[in-house]
Amino acid sequence: MSRFLSPEAARLAPYTPGEQPVDMEYVKLNTNESPFPPSPKVVEAITRGELEQLKLYSDPTCGQLNRAIAARYGLKPENVISGNGSDEILAFAFRAFCGAGIGVAFADITYSFYRSQAALFGLEATLIPLREDFSLRVDDYMDFPGTVVIANPNAPTGMALPRTEIQRLLEAGPDRLVIVDEAYVDFGGESCVPLIGQFDNLLVVQTMSKSRSLAGGRLGFALGSEALIAALNRVKYSFNPYNVNRLSLLAGAAAMEDGDYFQSCCRTIRDNRAWLTEQLEELGFTVLPSQANFVFAKSGRLSGGALYRGLKERGVLVRWWADSGRIEDYVRITVGSMEQLERLTAEITKLLEEES
Amino acid sequence: MSRFLSPEAARLAPYTPGEQPVDMEYVKLNTNESPFPPSPKVVEAITRGELEQLKLYSDPTCGQLNRAIAARYGLKPENVISGNGSDEILAFAFRAFCGAGIGVAFADITYSFYRSQAALFGLEATLIPLREDFSLRVDDYMDFPGTVVIANPNAPTGMALPRTEIQRLLEAGPDRLVIVDEAYVDFGGESCVPLIGQFDNLLVVQTMSKSRSLAGGRLGFALGSEALIAALNRVKYSFNPYNVNRLSLLAGAAAMEDGDYFQSCCRTIRDNRAWLTEQLEELGFTVLPSQANFVFAKSGRLSGGALYRGLKERGVLVRWWADSGRIEDYVRITVGSMEQLERLTAEITKLLEEES
Repeated sequence: MSRFLSPEAARLAPYTPGEQPVDMEYVKLNTNESPFPPSPKVVEAITRGELEQLKLYSDPTCGQLNRAIAARYGLKPENVISGNGSDEILAFAFRAFCGAGIGVAFADITYSFYRSQAALFGLEATLIPLREDFSLRVDDYMDFPGTVVIANPNAPTGMALPRTEIQRLLEAGPDRLVIVDEAYVDFGGESCVPLIGQFDNLLVVQTMSKSRSLAGGRLGFALGSEALIAALNRVKYSFNPYNVNRLSLLAGAAAMEDGDYFQSCCRTIRDNRAWLTEQLEELGFTVLPSQANFVFAKSGRLSGGALYRGLKERGVLVRWWADSGRIEDYVRITVGSMEQLERLTAEITKLLEEES
Repeated sequence: MSRFLSPEAARLAPYTPGEQPVDMEYVKLNTNESPFPPSPKVVEAITRGELEQLKLYSDPTCGQLNRAIAARYGLKPENVISGNGSDEILAFAFRAFCGAGIGVAFADITYSFYRSQAALFGLEATLIPLREDFSLRVDDYMDFPGTVVIANPNAPTGMALPRTEIQRLLEAGPDRLVIVDEAYVDFGGESCVPLIGQFDNLLVVQTMSKSRSLAGGRLGFALGSEALIAALNRVKYSFNPYNVNRLSLLAGAAAMEDGDYFQSCCRTIRDNRAWLTEQLEELGFTVLPSQANFVFAKSGRLSGGALYRGLKERGVLVRWWADSGRIEDYVRITVGSMEQLERLTAEITKLLEEES
């Protein structure tokens, strides 16, 4: 490592993204992308003329996009901030609302990037264990004095909390900020967005990477009180004022306005998830109850590592975490198209036959 | 401001971007954008098929783009990191190479965003005054023990240092990192990229916003030793692993490969700059010697504020900094197309006539 590395940078805990292999064509069910292209309206929005306008900076206020998002959720544009993926938005939130004397708490099993970002800002992170059945007990957070981050539905489990549970946490600590990461909420979870007008200690973070089929456009956003959004903008304008590029601004607004396409994609994912869950259970898997566009499952007969490696050799990528304790025998499988899922279950069937 | 704001976020010094007005069509010479569209190869690269692939994440390693940049500069991909604009790259560098005990020094008159980023990371920033004639004296930095940032050419002056001067600084302090921000180098400055193999204490930051006509694509990059780039990646993977979107990756690689178009654009800007400088001098302006795609100039008869406001009323935007001490009578004018510049000088002529 460089001899110029600052002590702060030496203490970082960089995130490891899911594999994006280029050695062959895989059935890619490892990073929770959508199997569907973005809305046709997205493709129409990016015209030749717009490509030529790349010579000009993007709107630093993300005005058109924020208006489209606000309209979708019945909020004002002042309740919205957009970012270069929800990872950027989360980083802004960790800087804006945590620091010396304000630690952060999240589940021991959740989106592992929270740990990276806590390390980035030198925050004290408190990991609160999920229960044995991987459910999250809101009461475990009631006494925590700092900022709470809850992924709902959670990743990689896919399990969701009802809105009333999060409301209970918001009510119990009006001086404690709760960040609800709703990256996967559109596939069956209960969103906390309807609570925003009522609770100024609630920040909801969402992404267009999953339900809007725009993972490659890098678009995320947060919704909250005007004061919370102003605080996030303070960080944004200290870090990267023009944080969303012109084409993603256009793509995001078009995707947000095409409600029918969005609904249809989400419905298909839910149907495919039900089919996949049933198939896996027939194959002897334990499948956690998922409200997300993935399932978290373990075979009774193959270890998580054997399943991951066996599927990869057969051209199917799923996500597996080595040395991960009580989730080591699980794999996370993205709910793809029926064609992808039929291929997956066929390869699992063969793997199990070889095993026996 | 939000009652949830952390003490660290309360101390921030957010940057104010140049105006991006939407109230009318301006001749926009205020944010140093290119008057030319990006290379036709950029437009060709973003096909309908690629738009549909937005459903998939971008390559977090920015492999194709980094290879194109490396090839252009005769370096290895391991010497390159790409980012969501050079602002993001600068933020990574401030975090990677500055911190407790490692302060940062830069000129009192330079890209004002350095101050915002120093505040973001709670760094001790040392401002070193430019000389009376706005030139930068490298000897003033020789005794500084922390990280040095030099914009070369400098903004908003446009004045450039010869490479030999920066080399002198690199040689004098092999244990001190020097970050050279070459956002404007392609319009006549001497790049320090040829020194990278020789000095492991040199990091060069560039952008595609100006000479590559991709301000709206948000693309910047840094070049340096493998160890420096690895340190920057440590920060990137703690902040936002998928930091460049798919379309900008394609656009950047295509722009980097079209050397002829790039050369032709830069040549035109240099010609237009010479013309503009001559015209302004004939109109009684003092024009600093610029190697950038803008000029920094003051009228002998109109204050900076009067010039800025008068031109804005006439539909021409230039950049002016109120309450800026010794640069308050200057305006920064982007070198646009001949059509834009003729309009500008015509409006200035009218303003001066009204004045007399």
